[in-house]
Amino acid sequence: MIRTTLAASLLVSVSAGAFAAQEVYETEQANFRIETVAEGLNIPWSIGFLPSGEMLVTERDGGSQGLRIIDADGNLRAEPVTGMPQDVVVNRQGGLFDAIPHPDFAQNRLVYISYAQGTREAHRTALIRARLSDNLTALENVEELFAVDFDIATNRHHGGKILFDRDGYLWLSLGDGGDHMDEAQEPSNHIGTLIRLNDDGSVPADNPFADGNGGAPEVWSYGHRNIQGLVQHPETGTIWSHEHGPRGGDEVNIHLEGGLNYGWPEITYGINYDGSIITEERERDGLEQPIWYWTPSIANSGAAFYTGDAFPHWQNDLFVGALAGMHVARLETDGDRVIGQERLLEDLEERIRDVRTGPDGFLYITTDSDEGRVLRLVPAE
Amino acid sequence: MIRTTLAASLLVSVSAGAFAAQEVYETEQANFRIETVAEGLNIPWSIGFLPSGEMLVTERDGGSQGLRIIDADGNLRAEPVTGMPQDVVVNRQGGLFDAIPHPDFAQNRLVYISYAQGTREAHRTALIRARLSDNLTALENVEELFAVDFDIATNRHHGGKILFDRDGYLWLSLGDGGDHMDEAQEPSNHIGTLIRLNDDGSVPADNPFADGNGGAPEVWSYGHRNIQGLVQHPETGTIWSHEHGPRGGDEVNIHLEGGLNYGWPEITYGINYDGSIITEERERDGLEQPIWYWTPSIANSGAAFYTGDAFPHWQNDLFVGALAGMHVARLETDGDRVIGQERLLEDLEERIRDVRTGPDGFLYITTDSDEGRVLRLVPAE
Repeated sequence: MIRTTLAASLLVSVSAGAFAAQEVYETEQANFRIETVAEGLNIPWSIGFLPSGEMLVTERDGGSQGLRIIDADGNLRAEPVTGMPQDVVVNRQGGLFDAIPHPDFAQNRLVYISYAQGTREAHRTALIRARLSDNLTALENVEELFAVDFDIATNRHHGGKILFDRDGYLWLSLGDGGDHMDEAQEPSNHIGTLIRLNDDGSVPADNPFADGNGGAPEVWSYGHRNIQGLVQHPETGTIWSHEHGPRGGDEVNIHLEGGLNYGWPEITYGINYDGSIITEERERDGLEQPIWYWTPSIANSGAAFYTGDAFPHWQNDLFVGALAGMHVARLETDGDRVIGQERLLEDLEERIRDVRTGPDGFLYITTDSDEGRVLRLVPAE
Repeated sequence: MIRTTLAASLLVSVSAGAFAAQEVYETEQANFRIETVAEGLNIPWSIGFLPSGEMLVTERDGGSQGLRIIDADGNLRAEPVTGMPQDVVVNRQGGLFDAIPHPDFAQNRLVYISYAQGTREAHRTALIRARLSDNLTALENVEELFAVDFDIATNRHHGGKILFDRDGYLWLSLGDGGDHMDEAQEPSNHIGTLIRLNDDGSVPADNPFADGNGGAPEVWSYGHRNIQGLVQHPETGTIWSHEHGPRGGDEVNIHLEGGLNYGWPEITYGINYDGSIITEERERDGLEQPIWYWTPSIANSGAAFYTGDAFPHWQNDLFVGALAGMHVARLETDGDRVIGQERLLEDLEERIRDVRTGPDGFLYITTDSDEGRVLRLVPAE
């Protein structure tokens, strides 16, 4: 990526709300500027766009005070949304995760929120839904829809990404809890799984273990380490996930059918961070192979298929944030395959936590910092 | 990639012939040292391993004097092989290309050589075969097996990679000659095609246009810009090629059947190097999509599926040199798909021209320079 620093006299500085356009980033398929939408956030973990133009932004380390509203004009409201459960445990990787509106939010005003629930010594990933008040200030009628059936004390590998697919199914990604990797091979519990629910939290009749035989009813797939990206391909409709592997094992998977085992920790392309071997096996019959993995690891986080009009050459590309990698990966796709990769925003030198396509067609990202920002990429000539 | 510079007191320096092991390169799936096999070569374009342990190395800019022998002990013979055709034209990208032994070289002593034939004003890629004398000093019984049927004056985009597949078919890659891209869409001539022959230069009966209807008999596929890597997948048996695209359009293709059109210049992921648009189209029904492309471009050159024992975790990975990119790309494969990429040897800061797996299981590369070297990667703890 080439970053062009314009001479000061040519700087085009646009002020609109909190936005300020500056340098032009020239990349392979698009030139863009970066605008700051909001700043001063405490590990902004997720962006959810409301149909009325506001954004739900979560602060992971804000815990029960971490659900924030950015108004349509770019103003970050000072007061967090009230009414959140008080049992959000903020520690290490745990805290508040996704907050996503229901596809019919304009009618039902429902939002879905995932978080680390419990205490530092005994916690689990939970999913609630609630009505967001008309003035966006409070959660009402909070209901717990799901909670992992296995308490952990590690404060790591929680999963936490929420997706509504086009058919209205509600997906929740989970992790192996760090110290419980062997449980990821057991679909009878929720550790290391991908969960599929109806929007009221009930179990769809066509889930692979809907009757409880062979696995927990909510489980769609298992053998996952820590899914941190969950999206649906805009053309094929296939669910794509990506997960943190060990060193060298960050991977992208596709979910063509239910009941599949993605292999962690029986097979992996990675090794432990201390250099020790987890397993020499990279593939085995009956265990799913990734369609992509990053070497070296990037610590992939957040994901969006780009579907806007602002960047025509990015259509259907998968954008993935990188924490340790400090960039945004643009994966070119051809159907359910990855056929190329470009790294964007390396010069920003920021850990990227979430990536989303905005309803305005701009690409939104959050920076993973206790002085975290919401940024958006807008086209430049 | 992390390069570890060992303290001088720990340096393990091995001298064997021209070899000298130095630093340890620590990469995702293997640690290795780099040994210099030969140096002082003039654009070493290709390596061919003889079953008796010697290497054929071509110097592109050596022209008719450019076929060199490296003995099994690593000694580069001072005198080039004699008997080469005198009509090798050395200019810009043209000169001597591949020199590859027949699979049954031990019995028949045949070598196959590709080169730019003619003059600067009128030249074409040609393929000869010859007997290599027992003492490896001279070509005998030189026969021309094939020459492109379209003379060019550009001195660019010659193709020139030779492959014998497991069934004994002889493949030759070609290019569009730089200024003749529209001819690449015409399978009735050889511009921008991949050629498939029997080992005596005759046309296999099952070539897609063997009877001359719809295309030239030698043509297997067309719509190529400049194929600079040509290999057979060790497990699937599929022929893989890679070609130089325009800026942003370097790509890897697979050849599952004959008669296919790979789209250049009708579709491409790249743009002209001056930034102008060739076509907005990236895909079209009836034109083949790449299975991988590099963004940004790397100027891919040479290719080898790794099949040795020295680096167990590299099995079936595709290694590709990068000229402008100055590294070796390691593409992880899963059958006929690419599922990951690692860049090796970026610290070397050398243009890489050819990559081959040696019979000793080491990975051999050549550096693209008028002080070019043959290097090999050997395992390190």
